[in-house]
Parts: sequence; structure tokens; C-alpha cells
Amino acid sequence: MTLSHAEIKRLKSLSVKKYRDASGLFTVEGAKLVEEALRSRFTVEQVVRRDEIGEEAMARITALSSPSPVLAVVRQPADLVLDDARIPSRGLFLALDAIRDPGNLGTILRIADWFGIDAVYASPDTVDVFNPKVVQATMGAIFRVRFHYTDLVALSRAAVAQGGAVYGTFLDGKDLYQKALSDGTQAPSLIVIGNESRGISPAVAALVTERLFIPPYPVDEPGSESLNAAVATAVTVAEFRRRTR
Amino acid sequence: MTLSHAEIKRLKSLSVKKYRDASGLFTVEGAKLVEEALRSRFTVEQVVRRDEIGEEAMARITALSSPSPVLAVVRQPADLVLDDARIPSRGLFLALDAIRDPGNLGTILRIADWFGIDAVYASPDTVDVFNPKVVQATMGAIFRVRFHYTDLVALSRAAVAQGGAVYGTFLDGKDLYQKALSDGTQAPSLIVIGNESRGISPAVAALVTERLFIPPYPVDEPGSESLNAAVATAVTVAEFRRRTR
Repeated sequence: MTLSHAEIKRLKSLSVKKYRDASGLFTVEGAKLVEEALRSRFTVEQVVRRDEIGEEAMARITALSSPSPVLAVVRQPADLVLDDARIPSRGLFLALDAIRDPGNLGTILRIADWFGIDAVYASPDTVDVFNPKVVQATMGAIFRVRFHYTDLVALSRAAVAQGGAVYGTFLDGKDLYQKALSDGTQAPSLIVIGNESRGISPAVAALVTERLFIPPYPVDEPGSESLNAAVATAVTVAEFRRRTR
Repeated sequence: MTLSHAEIKRLKSLSVKKYRDASGLFTVEGAKLVEEALRSRFTVEQVVRRDEIGEEAMARITALSSPSPVLAVVRQPADLVLDDARIPSRGLFLALDAIRDPGNLGTILRIADWFGIDAVYASPDTVDVFNPKVVQATMGAIFRVRFHYTDLVALSRAAVAQGGAVYGTFLDGKDLYQKALSDGTQAPSLIVIGNESRGISPAVAALVTERLFIPPYPVDEPGSESLNAAVATAVTVAEFRRRTR
């Protein structure tokens, strides 16, 4: 098999958001991720192997620093963007408020997968989940975790309207370990994760019903001013799950 | 002030490990980090401002994708490498076994700072802590956390010899939340964090006295195969600190 110049160009273009959006496709690279894609509910449109197309063509289409032996073109799910703010009546959910670092988003999806988060919602200004760096950092979690872009203000309102709770971490919040935490078995529980530098946006912060704080040690002498967004997510979600064990 | 061509070359060279090692210096960029360096126990050798040397010279010496308004040249601490494995008789410590990703190392130092870890030890094959990407990811924690390269086998032996414990996470370890955890107030407690893909090396794993496992949710249905190294560090250390609160 040889790839035409136009085909190489098309595959390469999928490393750019504009072309992913236009085509509704994205790429995954590496044997493990391609295998996970094939086993998932996602539709794999094409699998390209280095053995078949040659080293040089593979080096041209890869979005990574060193090309993988195999790459798959995968269709984005139809429910990626939710125009109306729906939230299931039960479950533990994450709401990502403008997470911008691809590594953070990928790591957060891996955390969501490990700790059985029912769905992850992200504001429209969150980094593209099909950015190759995000896909890589998820280590396959992208194929298992439910993920949607939606308006977080409407989503938070929907959670509250259903008798649920909206959690967020703030420097003036209450000690995570001293608060009652609801794991979403009665009504939706939404944990909001703020942007890496600005935190939770004012419009969403106004809808947070439970303000949390991850206490440093010693509690009155924090060294750093904050924790990384993915780290704060992990510590918070781990505590929710510890309680219900 | 103008910088000579040789001076620009010297400053630029500090983005490469070989030249950092040879000079015993490293650079930090950005107003916040430079300020933290000046307030720290580290010796700042030189501060270079964009206003003084011009945009073009700054763009040439930066190790970042976009140059900062200010850069400092800082001396590496004299006790960076410990040839003999010493460990204090009390305290909670991290041992990083071949952490290779600069973002992970930076994030781990930020976690150590937040949770009051007494010192972080790293195997010699861990990424260089003065790599500009590590320095940036620490958000200043690099100036507050004690950090040493040392042999982790000898270090683990030293901890055990003092009646301490060596913790590590393994897929077949015991539920973190069901284990007794010692925070190091009686004898040294060392938490080993394994490499991103290979985990804890066999020689160090053999010296781990307490094998831990971060339980997924639901506990018998893990989605992901593992957590990111920095995330596992955060969840583990947060639990040690929660217990002693």
C-alpha cells in the first residue's frame, strides 16, 4: 500500500483542531491506543501501519515527536457537544472549567477512569479533547470515559434543580476531610475543576453549593500557593470514593 | 546594558544539562519565579531583564517557547548529590525511582511542598531537576523543598536500619485506606514513587516493607491500568497527611 500525497496531507491535517472539527475525526497513535480504540464504542475509520506505508510517510503524518508503528483514524462521538444542559439524575461527575493544558486534561480523564466518574463535562474553552497530546496522556481512558462539552452554568443549575450538589475547591473553602460529601447515589454530584491559573470562573463559582479546600500540611503553613489542577482533581475524587467504600 | 555574544551563548547553554552540570548553575524565568529565587536560600548569581538587554537577546537566551521579561541565573545547592546514603532519623520522605517526565517531577515537587514532605530523594536516572521544564512546573516549590540525588537502595536500607518503613504502590499491594501508615514522627518513613512505565525497579521494590495499592472505583473494575506517577504521589501523600490531622 502506498499513500497518495493528498492522503498523507489529509492524515497530517488531523493534528490541527480546525481540520478535526471539519472532518469529525481524530487520530490515535501507538499499538496500545489503537487496540483500545478498536475494542471501544468508537468507530475506527482507518488503520495505517508503518510496515505498509513506509517510515517516511509515517514520519510525515505523525503528530508526535517520533512516529509510532501504527496510527488509527477514529470518528468523534456524535454526542461530544451538548447544546442543552442535561445531567443524569444520579452519579458523580466532573465539570472542567477552562482546563487549558493538554497534559492536565489527559491526566484528568485517566483519573476519571480510575475512580469511576460517570461523565466528564467541559466548558467550550477547555482544550480540545482530541488534541494528540491529550489523547496520548489519557493512556486509553479517552475511549472509556463519557466526555461532553457543554455550558457549565446551565449544567450546574440543572444539577441543583435536581436536588444535587455542586462542589468546587477554593483557597477559602472548608476542609475537604471535614465536609459531608455526596457521591451522587441520590442526586447528581458535580465537582468543578478550575482553570490552571484563574481557578473557577465567577459565573460558575456563584453556583457552587459546597466550597472545599484541600488542606496543606502543616495546615497553617502552606508552602506552594496551590496544587496542579489534575492533582487537586485526584485528591478530591479519591476522598469522595474513600467515603463510600 | 548590552550582552556580548559570548555572554548570550553562555546563558543560552544553561538550557542544556551538560552545561548546567559543568557550571553548577541553572536558570529560572518569569517575575514570580525570579522573586521566589531571590527570597530563597539559593544564591542568585545574575538577573537579566528584557528591558535592559532587548527583546531579541532575551529571545535568544530563553529556554521557553516565549521569552519572559526577566530571567535569573541561580547556583545549584552544594548538597544536590548525596554520595553516602543518609536519611534523617525522623520525617516523611519521597524517593523517586527514575521519574523521567519533567512535568511529573515538577508537579511532584509542588505536591511535596503543599503536603510538607521533609525531603525528596531521586535516583540518579531521574530527570534533571534543573531542566527548565521541571523548574517551571514546580511553580516555585523547587526553592522550598529539600531535594537530593542519591542511591535509593542504600537510602531504603538506611531507613529500615533506623527502624523506619519503606512504602511503595503496586498493583498487588494492599488497600491504602486499610493500612496503618506511619508519618515519620518516630522513625523515617520513605514513600517510593516508581517510573512512569516500569514502576518501581526490582532492587528497590525488594526493600519496600509496606506494599500499598490505590483502590480504583468500583474496586473490582479498574478502568485505567494505572494512575499517572504524580497523581499516585498526590493521593498517597494526601492520605498520610489526612491520618495525622
